[in-house]
Amino acid sequence: MPKISLKGQQMPESPIRKLVPYAEIAKKKGHKVYHLNIGQPDIKTPEVALNAVKNADITVLEYSHSAGFESYRTKLAAYYQKQGLPINTADIIITTGGSEALLFAMGSTMDADDEIIIPEPFYANYNGFSTASGVKVVPVISTIDTGFALPPIADFEKLITPKTKAILICNPGNPTGYLYSQEEIMQLAELVKKHDLFLIADEVYREFAYDGFVHHSVMNVPGLEEHAIMIDSVSKRFSMCGARIGCIVSKNKEVMATAMKFAQARLSPPTYAQIASEAALDTPQSYFDDVITEYKDRRDTLIAELNKIEGVKVATPKGAFYCIAKLPVKNADDFAQWLLESYDFNGETVMVAPAAGFYSTKGVGLDEVRIAYVLKKEDLIKSVQILKEALKAYNN
Amino acid sequence: MPKISLKGQQMPESPIRKLVPYAEIAKKKGHKVYHLNIGQPDIKTPEVALNAVKNADITVLEYSHSAGFESYRTKLAAYYQKQGLPINTADIIITTGGSEALLFAMGSTMDADDEIIIPEPFYANYNGFSTASGVKVVPVISTIDTGFALPPIADFEKLITPKTKAILICNPGNPTGYLYSQEEIMQLAELVKKHDLFLIADEVYREFAYDGFVHHSVMNVPGLEEHAIMIDSVSKRFSMCGARIGCIVSKNKEVMATAMKFAQARLSPPTYAQIASEAALDTPQSYFDDVITEYKDRRDTLIAELNKIEGVKVATPKGAFYCIAKLPVKNADDFAQWLLESYDFNGETVMVAPAAGFYSTKGVGLDEVRIAYVLKKEDLIKSVQILKEALKAYNN
Repeated sequence: MPKISLKGQQMPESPIRKLVPYAEIAKKKGHKVYHLNIGQPDIKTPEVALNAVKNADITVLEYSHSAGFESYRTKLAAYYQKQGLPINTADIIITTGGSEALLFAMGSTMDADDEIIIPEPFYANYNGFSTASGVKVVPVISTIDTGFALPPIADFEKLITPKTKAILICNPGNPTGYLYSQEEIMQLAELVKKHDLFLIADEVYREFAYDGFVHHSVMNVPGLEEHAIMIDSVSKRFSMCGARIGCIVSKNKEVMATAMKFAQARLSPPTYAQIASEAALDTPQSYFDDVITEYKDRRDTLIAELNKIEGVKVATPKGAFYCIAKLPVKNADDFAQWLLESYDFNGETVMVAPAAGFYSTKGVGLDEVRIAYVLKKEDLIKSVQILKEALKAYNN
Repeated sequence: MPKISLKGQQMPESPIRKLVPYAEIAKKKGHKVYHLNIGQPDIKTPEVALNAVKNADITVLEYSHSAGFESYRTKLAAYYQKQGLPINTADIIITTGGSEALLFAMGSTMDADDEIIIPEPFYANYNGFSTASGVKVVPVISTIDTGFALPPIADFEKLITPKTKAILICNPGNPTGYLYSQEEIMQLAELVKKHDLFLIADEVYREFAYDGFVHHSVMNVPGLEEHAIMIDSVSKRFSMCGARIGCIVSKNKEVMATAMKFAQARLSPPTYAQIASEAALDTPQSYFDDVITEYKDRRDTLIAELNKIEGVKVATPKGAFYCIAKLPVKNADDFAQWLLESYDFNGETVMVAPAAGFYSTKGVGLDEVRIAYVLKKEDLIKSVQILKEALKAYNN
């Protein structure tokens, strides 16, 4: 039998995926499972986006331009400009989700065995894209004690080698919910300029900032133009995860020309989803106001409830819709599995994402879980109650 | 300024893309350009597919399963079985176009610096996917003199090294239109079994076979189960290039488990396009009969007209909708540019794809072009007339 690739063997499995068979066991038992583990919001997709697809007059479903519809890119640039980001049509290539934007960014800036420094815990699929690109992830640890603030710049500098090509941040962070301050972004900007690196920022949760905190984009730092690469997506902004539309944005013409070659090789991003995404830009501000109010409310509820459980520590997220909670257990992996396989509270249980899968360093975050607050308030309250009872039962 | 990747620098540009600025020059002059250069059919997308999207009842555009809708995979397996291919739901992962299926296939079977043997001329984007995967393309030349039949097996064996992991074929071929015989497929099967390689077959044009020739799939060779990987797509079958839906198919469980990890990293294929693709499987047979009749008619017209031009040699395609024509010019690249930049016949000109970009070996195919017969008959007749007049003018 021919052998699969080493790369393929090392391709990490999603930390959530491992639990899926256990969730199926829980469901087979007739238990209701509250999904705190995933980032699939229950928020309605804007009707203007859905209607655009319904009303699209298509007879031949053709390829689009490899960079995406010109009209969409222009409208998207205007959207960014309204947000104060100096982004033009030529700085944007539409991709199949933020996922493909990350692949293009890595492929355009890194070769096999090059290194990318990423503050951990980080979005687990960064591992997958790095493996696919043949790139080595070098983690720098951020901790719950600082609320997952940017690690000291000295910690980054210790890790920089001639192979280091980029630093990747997720802002606001999945799984931490941390929002970098302007000062932190400026520190990173200085660092990448000093060492001639790229700064890749996954800003797909940009609009999800709470408590009056302001999001600071890498696209808004004077002098960083040649270094900054922004990753974006419609998935969370418009609750359109299934569209699979994102983009890579940069002022660096060489990066964009290279990313364009990757874009041409795969021909075009999906046409229907571009129609929906372009129309989504007409979503009224009231939609976002409602969504942000809803998420803030959910966050406040979740954090307040979690803080009532003895032995649980949680860093209050300033953005996105995740938080990391430290639980009074030795092994959150085992606990999460037990919750599904062996536990129920009045016929209900919860599914959480063990946080170890979000760390690249072995043995870190073993007692942490990621909780997504994409469920409605009542369900969050119930879920945390179940978690509380479960922790009691598990620890006896 | 930080440096882009070596990989990115080597990323080949599409052989067609280079001509785009010249096509714009022609259009600015007010010249009508007949596009013989692209594989975007003018055939209507089946209404059943378009209507399914129009009528889809969506409130939250959610992620699908990473392998694609279970319902779609099951229906697709039934479609293959009806065609005599022993393919089950579990053998299929839905991808974002055949493009992503190729990336998954390469990523799952090959590491950086591994080698893949491909008969040339081949679909130019194989270069892009190989570069993205860090894989080295090793070409084996097929020629117009044999109608682009499979090169002798001895030619393949000469090229096999310990780094060789797979052979990739496109059947029927883009850009050649060649359809491999059962004997040729069996020869390849023996070869990959002997040397423990994968046989990756891009079969996206499977239904486009003419003159009673039968398509022979790698999925239908007993004993080849662990070696065969099929790449498929809805793009051409249903004239849905913009959907971006394809699939990777294999009986090799290790390959599929690995491809699934790549699939999970990018979350899911596009939801709208899956709805269209699933519904497209209900397209009545009459649609395909009409399409095949139409293409056969176009092919016959194109070949007959081309054969009337002195000095032009063309291999009659048995499948797909491309042919390679050898022209009485030294440099088809230059000729194709000249056609757009400097020539018109009564205000009209043609755009062809210089074939050198479909060869990996330097200096081969310099006097060849690829012609796609995706235009209606009258336009093909006009186009060849223009080509005929242009060749006279160019050679004077």
